[in-house]
Amino acid sequence: MKRKSFADMDCPIARALELVGDWWTPLILREVVLIGTKNFQDLENNLGIAPAVLSSRLSVLVDNGLLERKRYSEHPERFEYLPTTAANDFRNVLDELRYWGTKWTSSPER
Amino acid sequence: MKRKSFADMDCPIARALELVGDWWTPLILREVVLIGTKNFQDLENNLGIAPAVLSSRLSVLVDNGLLERKRYSEHPERFEYLPTTAANDFRNVLDELRYWGTKWTSSPER
Repeated sequence: MKRKSFADMDCPIARALELVGDWWTPLILREVVLIGTKNFQDLENNLGIAPAVLSSRLSVLVDNGLLERKRYSEHPERFEYLPTTAANDFRNVLDELRYWGTKWTSSPER
Repeated sequence: MKRKSFADMDCPIARALELVGDWWTPLILREVVLIGTKNFQDLENNLGIAPAVLSSRLSVLVDNGLLERKRYSEHPERFEYLPTTAANDFRNVLDELRYWGTKWTSSPER
């Protein structure tokens, strides 16, 4: 199903969601911004996300200026993902989400 | 495609997203919490959302304790949607999203 785009809406909340509102994307930002996870394998392991989905979300985040993709090894060629200033600024949203989730959702039973 | 659930994750951000992370849901909360929109027709018009999607999102929000569905007319039978305390608490997340969107996205050209 093609989803309606929020990019051209007049509301900054809608436009923010166009960039960060995909399922998984806020959790990827949590990893990169709050925890400092940088490479694909660690993101995949920490999130338990399918590699194809992770790959697609990372590309969108790079295209939208939230992550920078940087080569850190030539043989074998490997890349890491670093937060831009825009991504680091998203920390406040993540903090409020964490606060809300702590207050209004229950931890899984042990 | 069946989406992975975040409900049982240990992270409160993930659990928050399970409740409010669907496409459209934060904008429905923006309407109800920040603007005070209460009825289906106004939500549909203000958001430009397909009625079937709106209906499904509202049901989930009611089931998850974020909205209360209240009958305000008997003939014809009509309902309005009121924010619960949990929804009103979500205002801080919306405020941070608005702040971020204002800073990092551009208004559509006129």
